[in-house]
Formats: sequence, C-alpha cells, structure tokens
Amino acid sequence: MMSNDPRDPIGELVTLLSRLPGVGERTAMRLAFHVLGQEPEFAHALSASLGRLHERVRRCSRCGNYGAEDLCAVCADPRRSAKLVCCVARVPDLLAIERSGSFRGRYHVLHGLLAPLDGVGPEELPLDRLEARVAEEGIEEVIVATPLSVEGEATSLYVAGALKRLGVRVSRIASGIPHGGELELTDQITLGRALDDRRSL
Amino acid sequence: MMSNDPRDPIGELVTLLSRLPGVGERTAMRLAFHVLGQEPEFAHALSASLGRLHERVRRCSRCGNYGAEDLCAVCADPRRSAKLVCCVARVPDLLAIERSGSFRGRYHVLHGLLAPLDGVGPEELPLDRLEARVAEEGIEEVIVATPLSVEGEATSLYVAGALKRLGVRVSRIASGIPHGGELELTDQITLGRALDDRRSL
Repeated sequence: MMSNDPRDPIGELVTLLSRLPGVGERTAMRLAFHVLGQEPEFAHALSASLGRLHERVRRCSRCGNYGAEDLCAVCADPRRSAKLVCCVARVPDLLAIERSGSFRGRYHVLHGLLAPLDGVGPEELPLDRLEARVAEEGIEEVIVATPLSVEGEATSLYVAGALKRLGVRVSRIASGIPHGGELELTDQITLGRALDDRRSL
Repeated sequence: MMSNDPRDPIGELVTLLSRLPGVGERTAMRLAFHVLGQEPEFAHALSASLGRLHERVRRCSRCGNYGAEDLCAVCADPRRSAKLVCCVARVPDLLAIERSGSFRGRYHVLHGLLAPLDGVGPEELPLDRLEARVAEEGIEEVIVATPLSVEGEATSLYVAGALKRLGVRVSRIASGIPHGGELELTDQITLGRALDDRRSL
C-alpha cells in the first residue's frame, strides 16, 4: 500500500504526509487512516484549507509577515513604534517574540537565512527592502533576532554590515544561559558567550 | 492568529490540523508554517489527495478492507485460504498482521468495536456480513483479533457468541508476555493471562 501507484490513494497520501517535518512513514499512515476513519467532511475541510492556503495568505508589503491584508496586523497597529525594528528569519520567530510581550516595535521577516552552500545569497533575502525602510520610516534601531546558529550568525553579521553604512543602530538579540538553565548542563559556547556578555550588577 | 476568523487562513489550517491524533496546537502551527514555506505545489498535492480520499478508497465488498477495486488485494489473491478468517477492528490491525507474515487466510474488518456508551451497538458492526460469509465461503475457523482492551474483549465475546450458533470454530488471538518482555515489567492482568493460558512443553 506504500507505492506511488495512482490506484493507491492511501499510499499517495502517506507519501505526501511523510514529507512534513517530524512525520515518518508510520505516523503518516496513522494520520491517513485516521482521516479515512472520519466523516469525509473533515478531509474535505482540510483539503480546502490547504488548497487555498498560499492564495489566501499574503505577505505584508512592509515587513513580510503573514496576514490577510496589504499590511499585517503588527504594521497596521498605530501603537507599535516605527523607530524600532526586529529582523527575524521566519514568521514563527516573530510569533514567539509577540508571545513574549517584550517588543513593541515592528518587524522585518527575511523568510530565510544566508546559506551560500544552498545557493541562498544576500540578493535572495529582502535586505534592500529593509535598507529602504530605514530611510522611509525613520528607523533608529534594528535588532537582529536571527537564530544563534551558524547561518543565523552569518546573516546577522551581513545585515549589520549593510545597515551600519546607513547610520542606523544595529543590535543583536542577547545570547546566554536560558531562564531556569543549569550552568552544569549548558554547552561551552553558550557559557563562553554568557561570560563575555556579562553585565554589571 | 489562532481564531476561527474566516480571514485567518493559517489559524483555520492550524485548527483543522490540531484535530489529527498526536498533533497539538504547537505541532499544528509548525506543520502549517512548513507547508506555507514550501512551493504551493506541495499544498495543492496534499489538498487534492485529501479531497478525493474517501471517494477513491473503496471498502472491499467481502471483508471491508481498503482497496481500489470491488475486492481488496487479500480477497482477490487466490492463494489465500478461504477457510480461515481473521476478524479485526481496523485496517491498520490487518496491515500489522500482514506485516507479520503469519497469516494466510482472509480477513473481516469491523471498522469499530462495540461501545454501548458511545452508541455503537452490534447492529452498527458488519456482523451480519460475517455470519453470511461463514455460510457462503465455507469458513471453518474465525480468529477474533480485536484489541486486548475492554471494548475489544467485549466485542470478541459478542462475535464468538453470534458465530458459535452457526457451528463454526471461533478462537481468540493469544494474550501473554510480548517477545523480549520482562516479567518484572509486565502488568498484572497480562501476567495472570499468561499463566492461565500456559502451554505444555
């Protein structure tokens, strides 16, 4: 039942579901049989939602966040500060920062990170848009909140280099020991950073 | 973004994905953003597969197994014995038995278990079909392989009662300590059954 045979609709669905992150073939089969065991209405609703997803979800013309209008909910909110912009790699990162309730500025979503080996160079990321925004919107500081990975760090250095030429302040989200973290269980790179970036008490 | 707002396509997809087994809201969001980050073709393929799933998957007119034709692959296979039928609750159970390679008879899929509290009585299960098959196909033995749960046991007792009146041999799949299982870690019900069902050496 696991083939690509066009007469094997379960195998076809399992193959597609297996391409989702964290979904192996066993989980894909469990999901497919679950859907098959439900009323057809559920499969139809999921089908309709997926079928029109890319068409219905718009990228904010200013920051790249997802939304239903030309401007996303954050950019359309007049209470958000235009002076502070947080640059993130992906929309889920933006949502995580929103959940923290610690940021009242706007965002800029790169929808990717520099990855020269995968053919993602600076021209693939919307950095020209960010540079234009600095001039247009009177941005005073850009906080680069790309991941603390190799690609995230490389991207943050590139963004910082490009923006500093425009005279805007550029900062990097802090790296250190997470809340509740045990020093004993912290990896050495994080521990080294946390020591280097110590703050006065 | 988590509402049922018709203008919130991501929230709508997350809500639907959250109804899948083992998928919480966080996983659903991760899946939705993953799909959104892929080319639209992937979402369209998944949509098409789900949208026609119930329409394309047929239940075998003889045993209830899923397939593309009137008879499923097992029933259509002339090498399978018609004398021995294994009665299972769900198609994934049938597939697990097929993977074991230990069964060369046919199946009967109930697509459910007796659950009086949920309104599933004997008339909701295709037991009349099974009774008819006993007469029509010359079945000599029915192995009841419903789960070893309360509902599975109740269903097996009911099936056995109904079939025994027809003079066919009815057996129950063995319960005991699984292969590689530690006695120390085995629950007391399983251990009690394994002792009661001991076999001579």
